[in-house]
Amino acid sequence: MQALGRHLLLELFDCDAEALNSLETVKASMVEAAKRAQATIVDVVFHEFNPFGISGVVVIAESHLAIHTWPEYRYAAVDVFSCGDVLQPQTAATYLVEQLGAARASVVELQRGIFLQAAPMPHKPAGARVTGAKVPVAKVPVAKVPVARVLVARVPVATVPVARVPVARVPVARVPVARVPVARVPVGG
Amino acid sequence: MQALGRHLLLELFDCDAEALNSLETVKASMVEAAKRAQATIVDVVFHEFNPFGISGVVVIAESHLAIHTWPEYRYAAVDVFSCGDVLQPQTAATYLVEQLGAARASVVELQRGIFLQAAPMPHKPAGARVTGAKVPVAKVPVAKVPVARVLVARVPVATVPVARVPVARVPVARVPVARVPVARVPVGG
Repeated sequence: MQALGRHLLLELFDCDAEALNSLETVKASMVEAAKRAQATIVDVVFHEFNPFGISGVVVIAESHLAIHTWPEYRYAAVDVFSCGDVLQPQTAATYLVEQLGAARASVVELQRGIFLQAAPMPHKPAGARVTGAKVPVAKVPVAKVPVARVLVARVPVATVPVARVPVARVPVARVPVARVPVARVPVGG
Repeated sequence: MQALGRHLLLELFDCDAEALNSLETVKASMVEAAKRAQATIVDVVFHEFNPFGISGVVVIAESHLAIHTWPEYRYAAVDVFSCGDVLQPQTAATYLVEQLGAARASVVELQRGIFLQAAPMPHKPAGARVTGAKVPVAKVPVAKVPVARVLVARVPVATVPVARVPVARVPVARVPVARVPVARVPVGG
């Protein structure tokens, strides 16, 4: 079985509130995290919200990094979505935990785009782009697997870099959706 | 228990390969999906890769939508990350399944930023931003919950919009990381 993408979802708690509310700090941390993970940065987009919080995305050639911060709760949600075997997403995760001063962190890793295939899947070979070329669709046996395979790791910050810890069974609960009344309003300009 | 964010992860299989390789189609579909979900669009960033594939992010006031397409595998990975109770992420999901011609789709929903608190959490009230203001950190009892609560739903395309189906237990497996040799190279300019 092969997956096209690897998606780390970080929950950063008890962070440095001032760091989470600084566009410069959050942006610089995310860009540096991408570089340390060996990513090729394609685009960087960050916005500051009113009255608190930063949202930002670093688009990389290997997919993206995203962050949303809630300084008032000292919490940040970070995604590191990567493909290819060069990128080291856990390096980005470790760096962000440190930079944002997270006293607690947890990670969920999801495999994205799982196909039944033992051999590595040919993927985005370099080469000249042929405009209007018909896309040759690869004949890939379709995996009959239940949705995504979820690897869940509870990682105390002290032990980050976050080893992927297989968990025997994840108790799944229906969690009430947050009733968050007011949408985040971007600061003008 | 309250969560600050709601994160839908869509796996779209057996899509229209030409649609997945068209920057215009993918971008327009994502922007329209954001609008239909009642999101406030803040920024739109899309890139075409060589030789195939589109990556893009729609930054919204309520967080973000992201997509990565692999036309050669007729596969797209979509994220719809939202906060607030106005946004309807499942509407975006349904629309994208249709627009990209996905014959199969699955969804994982994650609650992001879970705190132990029965009452709704005050969230991003509108108001003038005070530059340099010290962030008042809310006193929120910290949830001692195991990592994220994962809601997994296997959803045949026919039944989308995707109801959140609580699953009793999710079998967790360690899935070998894909050995994807070549990174996606952005098309110049």
